[in-house]
Amino acid sequence: MTLVAMPEPSPPEPNIDAPRAPTLDSVARHAGVSRQTVSNVLNNPSVVRAETLQRVRAAIDVLGYRPFAAARNLRTRRSRTIAMRLHPVRDGVKGIVHDRFVHAVVEAARERDHRVLLIPLARRADETAAFADAVARGEADAALLTAVERDDPRQAELVRQRVPFVSFGRHRGATGRGPWVDIDGAAGTYQATQHLLRCGHTRIGFLGWPRGSRVGDDRRAGWASALADAGVPADPRHELEIVDNTDHARTAIEAVLRRDAPPTALVCASDTLALGALQAAGLLAAEIAIVGFDDTPTAAIVGLTSVAQPLPEAARESVRLLIAVIEGHASAHDERVLIAPLLVPRASTLACVDKQARPRN
Amino acid sequence: MTLVAMPEPSPPEPNIDAPRAPTLDSVARHAGVSRQTVSNVLNNPSVVRAETLQRVRAAIDVLGYRPFAAARNLRTRRSRTIAMRLHPVRDGVKGIVHDRFVHAVVEAARERDHRVLLIPLARRADETAAFADAVARGEADAALLTAVERDDPRQAELVRQRVPFVSFGRHRGATGRGPWVDIDGAAGTYQATQHLLRCGHTRIGFLGWPRGSRVGDDRRAGWASALADAGVPADPRHELEIVDNTDHARTAIEAVLRRDAPPTALVCASDTLALGALQAAGLLAAEIAIVGFDDTPTAAIVGLTSVAQPLPEAARESVRLLIAVIEGHASAHDERVLIAPLLVPRASTLACVDKQARPRN
Repeated sequence: MTLVAMPEPSPPEPNIDAPRAPTLDSVARHAGVSRQTVSNVLNNPSVVRAETLQRVRAAIDVLGYRPFAAARNLRTRRSRTIAMRLHPVRDGVKGIVHDRFVHAVVEAARERDHRVLLIPLARRADETAAFADAVARGEADAALLTAVERDDPRQAELVRQRVPFVSFGRHRGATGRGPWVDIDGAAGTYQATQHLLRCGHTRIGFLGWPRGSRVGDDRRAGWASALADAGVPADPRHELEIVDNTDHARTAIEAVLRRDAPPTALVCASDTLALGALQAAGLLAAEIAIVGFDDTPTAAIVGLTSVAQPLPEAARESVRLLIAVIEGHASAHDERVLIAPLLVPRASTLACVDKQARPRN
Repeated sequence: MTLVAMPEPSPPEPNIDAPRAPTLDSVARHAGVSRQTVSNVLNNPSVVRAETLQRVRAAIDVLGYRPFAAARNLRTRRSRTIAMRLHPVRDGVKGIVHDRFVHAVVEAARERDHRVLLIPLARRADETAAFADAVARGEADAALLTAVERDDPRQAELVRQRVPFVSFGRHRGATGRGPWVDIDGAAGTYQATQHLLRCGHTRIGFLGWPRGSRVGDDRRAGWASALADAGVPADPRHELEIVDNTDHARTAIEAVLRRDAPPTALVCASDTLALGALQAAGLLAAEIAIVGFDDTPTAAIVGLTSVAQPLPEAARESVRLLIAVIEGHASAHDERVLIAPLLVPRASTLACVDKQARPRN
């Protein structure tokens, strides 16, 4: 009845003798060579005669031998594994972006024959110790830091603990440096604002988070620069700071839209805020162009123009840098990669889309 | 300028000599014993004298020595790792449930000192070969199958390849058996239907997927049983089969609500379908109680009563069974764990909630 292919029960000791796959010894027997010769074929083929090499490789193919990862890891002192924190499940945009980035990093690592050790941690404060532990045990070679803040203490701590790392997100910690990959939020809101300017808008407001967050201030800066570059004044009454909550955004934008000379367009720091603005516009039947940020599934459903983070590209760059750092390439240690996001135009800026679709000789 | 604590550059060879942490040798030196004695303390403490044991353990604490994982893995032929497919990013309910389950499995594995090897694969057909490869290389000890279908070919294939596994989802493959953990979808829709019956509804429809899917048929069965047990006839005109799409569901339910004697309540196979039913009810200003399935973030936002899958519990049970299978406990090989889901009442069945909140002596 025991149809799962397992050795006979021998609890409580795990059965560690049952061979599940061909071994170095069975390859040696099959090829009629010594165990050491098989090992040389795998690790040091240049010392093996061509004819022997061919015979051993044929035996490896026939038997389907695969070298045991732990032996390779022990030999090279490399686990080919990157440690990364798995945040607790969160609803909303932060949860979506985190999970998409996890997918992208696992995929990018796989392309480079690496694995990802996801360490589930509720508190950021436990992160550096967990990474240091994983590296000390040889379970990971380096760590990828996420949710990086402006004065993030983790980079300095990892330097102190001699844990190789790459940050996803710029930082200016105590030591100030270390390689990072980031998505250029300011470039995203600059693009969004240009999109609205080209369409003829001159009263373009910004709906952002309270000042002080690295990501939020960056997104605000792109909007302000685009207006300044176009010589269009920013109206302080049309710049709002709201915690990232759709209801709060709706209430605030309703108030703004009831005033004289309201903005005709809004750049928002997140889709969450943009959805509140969309709801306010709907309630008041106001015509206002709206751009969100993060290109969430909801943006696609409700037709919200949004700025998309190219997370697969960010993940590939992070993995590339991590491998360079692990391999000790000095040039990687201060490398920074800033990736431009992409505007995804939809119905919430439909008039602009139409206008810009026309030939602009 | 090189502030990441890395050895001096020596590309292209990885630097494998720089000690990042105390070694077995440094513990031996510190305690004034041989390397073998330290190894005995770690692996076979009963052969070590009490006084020596204490001295070596003190040295381990003082130095912060952590045994190298690859050495332990090689010794025990255990990677303490579970392989699992990471599906490509998907929007919608399937993507949400998959990502939540990944979080839950990583967390449950961590509680048992295990890791999860997420293998990103676009095609299910590549899954068993990837699991067999990971187990052959000693990168994983067993596999957790997800998205299990009724006549799933993977279980038989893994038995053939001698890969230990547990299925998340019931199956009846060629070999028919193997341990599984599942969430009792029928119990969920049974609860939902009872909730509506208690509230006085007698015309309770079912909005499900086209027949033939394991999960969909199971959810339909719970609705049918609850009606049969209550002696309430199921009206075939109020049982709909719709692909899992909100727009399709809205159109279909609009048609049903325009007929004579429409249903006064609907049990739905998914939140995706339930949202379409909610939209139809809103458009026609129809009073109809609606229950969804999967308790998605959207259900919470729009106030949809829904059936929640207890994914953390399913993950813990899956990991428990996987470890039992890996350790060769015969009793685990045919174990099945069926977990009851939980109804989360919200505004879409508000009248029922109110009624049931009253004391029922």
